[in-house]
Amino acid sequence: MSDHVYKMLELTGSSKTSIEDAVSNAVAKAAESVRNIHWFEVVETRGHVEDGKVAHWQVVLKVGFRLE
Amino acid sequence: MSDHVYKMLELTGSSKTSIEDAVSNAVAKAAESVRNIHWFEVVETRGHVEDGKVAHWQVVLKVGFRLE
Amino acid sequence: MSDHVYKMLELTGSSKTSIEDAVSNAVAKAAESVRNIHWFEVVETRGHVEDGKVAHWQVVLKVGFRLE
Amino acid sequence: MSDHVYKMLELTGSSKTSIEDAVSNAVAKAAESVRNIHWFEVVETRGHVEDGKVAHWQVVLKVGFRLE
Amino acid sequence: MSDHVYKMLELTGSSKTSIEDAVSNAVAKAAESVRNIHWFEVVETRGHVEDGKVAHWQVVLKVGFRLE
Amino acid sequence: MSDHVYKMLELTGSSKTSIEDAVSNAVAKAAESVRNIHWFEVVETRGHVEDGKVAHWQVVLKVGFRLE
Amino acid sequence: MSDHVYKMLELTGSSKTSIEDAVSNAVAKAAESVRNIHWFEVVETRGHVEDGKVAHWQVVLKVGFRLE
Amino acid sequence: MSDHVYKMLELTGSSKTSIEDAVSNAVAKAAESVRNIHWFEVVETRGHVEDGKVAHWQVVLKVGFRLE
Amino acid sequence: MSDHVYKMLELTGSSKTSIEDAVSNAVAKAAESVRNIHWFEVVETRGHVEDGKVAHWQVVLKVGFRLE
Amino acid sequence: MSDHVYKMLELTGSSKTSIEDAVSNAVAKAAESVRNIHWFEVVETRGHVEDGKVAHWQVVLKVGFRLE
Amino acid sequence: MSDHVYKMLELTGSSKTSIEDAVSNAVAKAAESVRNIHWFEVVETRGHVEDGKVAHWQVVLKVGFRLE
Amino acid sequence: MSDHVYKMLELTGSSKTSIEDAVSNAVAKAAESVRNIHWFEVVETRGHVEDGKVAHWQVVLKVGFRLE
Repeated sequence: MSDHVYKMLELTGSSKTSIEDAVSNAVAKAAESVRNIHWFEVVETRGHVEDGKVAHWQVVLKVGFRLE
Repeated sequence: MSDHVYKMLELTGSSKTSIEDAVSNAVAKAAESVRNIHWFEVVETRGHVEDGKVAHWQVVLKVGFRLE
Repeated sequence: MSDHVYKMLELTGSSKTSIEDAVSNAVAKAAESVRNIHWFEVVETRGHVEDGKVAHWQVVLKVGFRLE
Repeated sequence: MSDHVYKMLELTGSSKTSIEDAVSNAVAKAAESVRNIHWFEVVETRGHVEDGKVAHWQVVLKVGFRLE
Repeated sequence: MSDHVYKMLELTGSSKTSIEDAVSNAVAKAAESVRNIHWFEVVETRGHVEDGKVAHWQVVLKVGFRLE
Repeated sequence: MSDHVYKMLELTGSSKTSIEDAVSNAVAKAAESVRNIHWFEVVETRGHVEDGKVAHWQVVLKVGFRLE
Repeated sequence: MSDHVYKMLELTGSSKTSIEDAVSNAVAKAAESVRNIHWFEVVETRGHVEDGKVAHWQVVLKVGFRLE
Repeated sequence: MSDHVYKMLELTGSSKTSIEDAVSNAVAKAAESVRNIHWFEVVETRGHVEDGKVAHWQVVLKVGFRLE
Repeated sequence: MSDHVYKMLELTGSSKTSIEDAVSNAVAKAAESVRNIHWFEVVETRGHVEDGKVAHWQVVLKVGFRLE
Repeated sequence: MSDHVYKMLELTGSSKTSIEDAVSNAVAKAAESVRNIHWFEVVETRGHVEDGKVAHWQVVLKVGFRLE
Repeated sequence: MSDHVYKMLELTGSSKTSIEDAVSNAVAKAAESVRNIHWFEVVETRGHVEDGKVAHWQVVLKVGFRLE
Repeated sequence: MSDHVYKMLELTGSSKTSIEDAVSNAVAKAAESVRNIHWFEVVETRGHVEDGKVAHWQVVLKVGFRLE
């Protein structure tokens, strides 16, 4: 890890099924345009409710990748 | 969303199976007495341990609903 | 609960499958050397990414047990 | 203020014009059903954007009133 | 604790004598209208000063009770 | 909102007249290079003082937009 | 800015009209007895309510000035 | 409270007997040199231990007084 | 204090009578197995309620002791 | 500073020698692709340990630059 | 430490060379007008950047001194 | 990193010379009794002042090590 520099992006992923899936969606989306993503950190977990049921899980997270 | 006013309630839901289930239980309970729930935010995730295993997931969350 | 005293340990559990599994792994590991674990609190949720996918969920948590 | 007890409600007010107006809308709405509101505290300021302009100011606040 | 759901109320209790008494006053007041209060958490401790002496202790707390 | 992914940018807007104007300036600037901005959140409010008067309001905010 | 040292004071300004006015009142008051005020940071926004309307905006802020 | 401006001082009071006494000591000391103290807020509670017993309670608090 | 190293333990003490007593109970318990405890810091104050009255005060605290 | 808008990036710099060096590395890296960097704020300081010694200092920081 | 009362001042020190030097500058400046400074706590570390290099380290800190 | 479990210890290191040295002292002390220390995180930086100069740097940190 010597003198590498990393950049963090803050994203919100969403999913109808689970918190893990919302995170995975955001990571996959970020990986479309950024290489070398190494880690993520969950910042906040929230969601939308419709008809008394959770309709979408929304997870705010930071993803970190190495600058080349 | 013009000039609507929303109210937030703070609840703790519990479940033997998962974090998502604990949230859903709390949202469903709130929906029994409150209409127009739009969103929730997770405040804290914790749980009870029995015999070295997670016995219950307990999730503190806020639910927001529109005042009529 | 009268005048009992509890101690909290801070641990990080990891899992390839889910947040719940990472918590359970940490609680099970702690239970190998500590008796009377009563509860846990999630402090932070993060993870490693490989090839644009979540490779490991890492959950920082505190576990509380009664001092005898 | 002797031994009075106060209760706080968490609300989100919104307004097209200003932060102050969003707060005032929430306080006025609360005053329709609660007497003796004494103070408020702003918890968070956010808003919606449409076409590159702020469309609504949304202010999360707590209002405190004396229980009778 | 299976699948119970709990609700938290945020209150401010006051007392001329002590922090503990301010908490007890708020809990007692809440118990007049809510059953099944199980726990409280102190959020903030403050107070009024008159003539260079503490005139009232004011404690902001959350009380949690089980929804039936 | 299904499975959309959103990105947040952290900006500081400034204005000689008001907090709202500082926010609007930052949102307008961001909209020059980013489409689909949906919301903002105020992170911090500060400012410069000259000759005992507020010379500029500076508002740190996050803006969120949908990734296409 | 070389090796200057700055001191921060924590103040609460109030106003019947707006958040900005409450800040300006506190800055102006501080400027009566302190020279070289350079910046301020808002710490908290709150206020008093009378008859269901905001009677006073109260803003807690820090002001920073250069020590000579 | 119209357009008054208040100043807050951060103090640490100590006492061999109780948290309340540590607060009262700090408020009394502040009142020796400052008039018009209206309120205090507890920031942190800590203390010294000697021979396995609490030797001193130390309470960090802010006191607010009206600037004349 | 030269180059000493200190370790902090996180404990929860409980008491039927007061916050101070809950802290003292936890410090006394820690002193049974650890020497050189120098200070404590209160992290959280909470408690159990039974029949509308505070049944136990529970104080989460950190105790610091010098490593030999 | 009139009506300028600034953007903040969150980076992690690392160094084998010091916290200051880790910050400087991150700022230098950012300056390769961004002009007008004006300030930075340290968010978190951490590091890697190998063989009981600090192997790398890792500093999470935000850098702010003026949008043109 | 019996019943002493301490006061904290919030300062910002700056230095071209290091974080430690910025702290020392602020402490030395405070010691010109205040006796009995016992401790300091770092609140925030930031700095100015010029030409892609750290030009000044700025450290916000609190210094505590005993009131006589 | 598969399903490893890590434990964090909270320590305070001190040094007459620098923040980095205080961290290194604490890590070295922990390594005397714990194997597999992988990382540390700085929690707080403070220190003692004597005669208007920094006498000791005190750094509170967490160290994380893999449980075997």
